Amino acid sequence: MNDPRVALLIEFLRFPSVSTQTEHNQDLVDCAGWIRNRCEAIGLETRIIPTAGHPIVLAKSKPDPAKRTVLIYGHYDVQPPEPLEAWETPPFSPEIRNDRIYARGSTDNKGQILAHILGVEEALKRDGELPVNVIFLIEGEEEVGSTNLAAFLEANREELQCDVIVISDTGMAAHGCPTLSYALRGIAALELIVRGPSVDLHSGVFGGAVANPATAVARILSTLHNEDGHVMVEGFYDSVRPMADWERKAAAELPVTDDLVRELTGVSELFGEKGYSTSERVGARPTAEVNGVGGGYQGEGTKTVLPREAFAKLTFRLVPNQAPEEIIKLVEAHIRKHVPPGVTIEIIPGHGGEPYFFDPMSADGLAAQRALEQVFGKKTALMREGGSIPILTTFRNILGVDSILLALASPDCQAHGPNENFPIDNFLKGIELNQVALRELAKAKSA
Amino acid sequence: MNDPRVALLIEFLRFPSVSTQTEHNQDLVDCAGWIRNRCEAIGLETRIIPTAGHPIVLAKSKPDPAKRTVLIYGHYDVQPPEPLEAWETPPFSPEIRNDRIYARGSTDNKGQILAHILGVEEALKRDGELPVNVIFLIEGEEEVGSTNLAAFLEANREELQCDVIVISDTGMAAHGCPTLSYALRGIAALELIVRGPSVDLHSGVFGGAVANPATAVARILSTLHNEDGHVMVEGFYDSVRPMADWERKAAAELPVTDDLVRELTGVSELFGEKGYSTSERVGARPTAEVNGVGGGYQGEGTKTVLPREAFAKLTFRLVPNQAPEEIIKLVEAHIRKHVPPGVTIEIIPGHGGEPYFFDPMSADGLAAQRALEQVFGKKTALMREGGSIPILTTFRNILGVDSILLALASPDCQAHGPNENFPIDNFLKGIELNQVALRELAKAKSA
Repeated sequence: MNDPRVALLIEFLRFPSVSTQTEHNQDLVDCAGWIRNRCEAIGLETRIIPTAGHPIVLAKSKPDPAKRTVLIYGHYDVQPPEPLEAWETPPFSPEIRNDRIYARGSTDNKGQILAHILGVEEALKRDGELPVNVIFLIEGEEEVGSTNLAAFLEANREELQCDVIVISDTGMAAHGCPTLSYALRGIAALELIVRGPSVDLHSGVFGGAVANPATAVARILSTLHNEDGHVMVEGFYDSVRPMADWERKAAAELPVTDDLVRELTGVSELFGEKGYSTSERVGARPTAEVNGVGGGYQGEGTKTVLPREAFAKLTFRLVPNQAPEEIIKLVEAHIRKHVPPGVTIEIIPGHGGEPYFFDPMSADGLAAQRALEQVFGKKTALMREGGSIPILTTFRNILGVDSILLALASPDCQAHGPNENFPIDNFLKGIELNQVALRELAKAKSA
Repeated sequence: MNDPRVALLIEFLRFPSVSTQTEHNQDLVDCAGWIRNRCEAIGLETRIIPTAGHPIVLAKSKPDPAKRTVLIYGHYDVQPPEPLEAWETPPFSPEIRNDRIYARGSTDNKGQILAHILGVEEALKRDGELPVNVIFLIEGEEEVGSTNLAAFLEANREELQCDVIVISDTGMAAHGCPTLSYALRGIAALELIVRGPSVDLHSGVFGGAVANPATAVARILSTLHNEDGHVMVEGFYDSVRPMADWERKAAAELPVTDDLVRELTGVSELFGEKGYSTSERVGARPTAEVNGVGGGYQGEGTKTVLPREAFAKLTFRLVPNQAPEEIIKLVEAHIRKHVPPGVTIEIIPGHGGEPYFFDPMSADGLAAQRALEQVFGKKTALMREGGSIPILTTFRNILGVDSILLALASPDCQAHGPNENFPIDNFLKGIELNQVALRELAKAKSA
C-alpha cells in the first residue's frame, strides 16, 4: 500500500489522543496541531481554539457568499485502548492486514474525518475551488461528552453559520451498503425508590404482615409492558409520529437480519413489541427499559431479610414527537397509580434528550442519498438508529441546522474495542464521497 | 438489690462469651466452667464436653427411673456487643436500672437459663429432690448456628433420653403476659437467575429488540402474589393445615396490636394476606418473600445498559404440613410457567427447614399452660411465631421428643442489639416458673 493518503492516515493514527486520560493531554495538543498543519497545507484558513478541556480545530475554505456552506464535524480524540493485551498489534502502531488498517481511532473518528479533509484537498487541487464553502469543526472531546462544544458553538454562532452539517461517525447497515441514518432516539431517565419498613426486617418475624418493597418494585415494573412488549403507560404512544410508508419499506429493506442481531447480542430469541420488525423496534419505536433494579440482600447464599427499600433505574428511548418532560410526567402518573399497598415511593426524574429526525426526502436528504449511491453503486439504505447522538440536537438548537449522517464505519469495525479497524476501501470511498456529497449538496441549494 | 440470685446473674453476665469472635474462645471456656461449678455446687452430676467449637455443659440430677425426665436446653454464648458506643453502660459490666439488668446476654440467654438452674437449686434445697429427672444441656454455639449440637445429640442419644424438652429462649407476647409459643414456621429458599444477552447491551442500540432480564425478573416476581397478598403458586396452600378454632381465638386474644407492629417496623400501613389478622399472617400463614433482587446498574445516576442478567433471592416461610422440598418443586414449576419470552432462567434451590408445631392442648402443653398461668397470674397466651428455631427439629428428629417454649423474654429486651436487658421480675418469675413447670410436667406423666 503505497498510497500517500493511507500514509497520512497512519501518521494521524500514531497520536495516542485519548481524551479521558490526562497523561495524554499533550498528545491531543500535538494531534490538533497535526490537523492544523494538514488543513493549512491544503489552503484552508485554520486555527486552534483552546477550551477548558482539549482544543478545537477550525478550518475554513475561502468563503464565497454565492455558495452554500457545509460544516463538516468530526473528532480527533479516541477511546482508551485498554485492554492492551487484547490487541493483535499495538493500538497506536497502525498496521494493514486484510485490506484494513488496524489502530485505535481508525474508524472512530480519525479515518472518517481525514477522508473528508483529503476529499476537500483533492477537489481544491483539481478544481481550484469547492462547490460549497466548507467549515471543518474537529473537536477533541467527543469521547468525553463534548463538554466544551456547546459553549464554543454559542460563542461562535456567527462564524459557524452554515446551511447543513455533515458528519461521518455512524455505521453502515452492512459492509459496502451505503447508509443514511436519518433518525435517532431521544431519552428520558427516571429512578424509582420504593420504601417500606424503617430498617431491614427479619422476614420470619414480620414476613406476611408487612409489604415487601422488593416485591412491590417488581409489581410496579411488571405493569410497564403487556405480554406483547407494548408499553402500557397511558398516553405513552400518543405523540409518536407513525412511520411513513417509505420508512417501513426502507426498514424492511435494511440488510440487518434477525439472525445477525441474535448473534450480535447472544440471546436465544429476539423479543420486542408485537407488530414491528427488529429494525423498527430498535429505531422507530419508543421503549421502557429497566437499566438497573436492586433491593435487599445482594451477596452469596441466603439472608432472610425483608428489605427496607428497593429501587429501579429506568430509561425510556423516545421517537419523534415524544418530549422527554412529557414522558416523565406520564410515567410518574402511571407508577403512582400502580403502587401496591403498604409501601411509599419516591420518583427522581433524570436527564432527558430529544429524539432526532432529519427528513431524508428533503432536498439535502435526497442529495445525500444520491451521493452515497453514486460512490457505493447501490441504493442507499435509510436507517433509524436506536441510540442517541446529543450533539445533533446541540447543533440544531444553537446553529439552527440539520446534520446529515454519512456512514463510513463498517459493522465489524470494533470501534471502542480492541483491534479497531477501518477498511482501506471505506477510507478511499470516503474521500470520494466527500467530493460527490459536496457537489450534490451544492445543487440542493435551489430545492 | 441485695438478692444473691441477682448477684449470681451479674457474675454470669461478666463473661464476654461471644461465640463468633475467636479472641473470646477462652472466655467461653471460662464461662462454661462457671456453669459447671454452679451446677456441681447444687448437687448435679456435671461435665464439660469439648466440641470442634465451644464446649457443651451437661448437668444431671440423680436419675430416678420412676420419674419422667425433662431436658432443659439453653446457651451461654452471646451475640457480639457491637456497636459499643450505642450502649449506655458497657455490655459486660452489668448494671441495674429501672428494675432491669442491662448486659449482653441478660435475656439471650444467660438470664433465662440461670433462672432454670436456680429454680432447680431452690427445689433441691427445699425438697431434697426434684419432681422429675433433670438434664441441663447448655451449649456455647447457639448464636453461630449450633454447629456441633446435632453430632453431640447423635453421639449421646442414650444418655440424653428424655420425655420432653423445656426451652426459655422466646419472647412474651407482651410484658407480663404468660406466653407459650407452640409453633414456628419452616423455610424453603431458592435463587432465581434470569439471563438474556451474553453481555450488557447498549439500551439505545438494542433496546426494544431484546428482552430485558431485569424486566423479566420483575414480571416473574409479580406473579407470586395476587393483589390481596395471597400466594399464587399452584398447590402452595394444599398441605396447609387450617387453624383450629381455638387457634384463631388464641390469635385474636394476643396482646399484639396492629399499632404496635406498625411502630416496631416503621411502616406507614400494614399489608398482608386478606382474611387473616396480623398475628395469623405472621404465625399461621405461609409467605413468599423476596429477600433480594438485583440486576444491571447499581451505582449512582444513570447507565443505559440492557443488563445481561438479573436475580431474585426468595424464601418461603412454611407452616404445618408444608414440606420444604415439595414447596420448592411447586415454586419451580410456577416460575417456569411464567418465564417471559426471550430470556432463560436458572433456579438454584437453597436450604430448607420444616415448620414446627407442638400441640399446646397435649398433656405436656396443658401442663405448661397451667405453670405459666400460676406464675404470672393470667391466662396463658398461645402464640405461633413467624421465625424458625432449627434446633427444635433437630431435637425432635434425633431425640424423638418435643420442646416446650416457656417465654421469659420481654418484647423490648433488645436481644442482639445494644442495651440488651432483662427485667428482674422476669428473672425471679423464671426461677419460680422452673419449679412449677417441673411439678406440672411430672403430673402430666399419666396423661
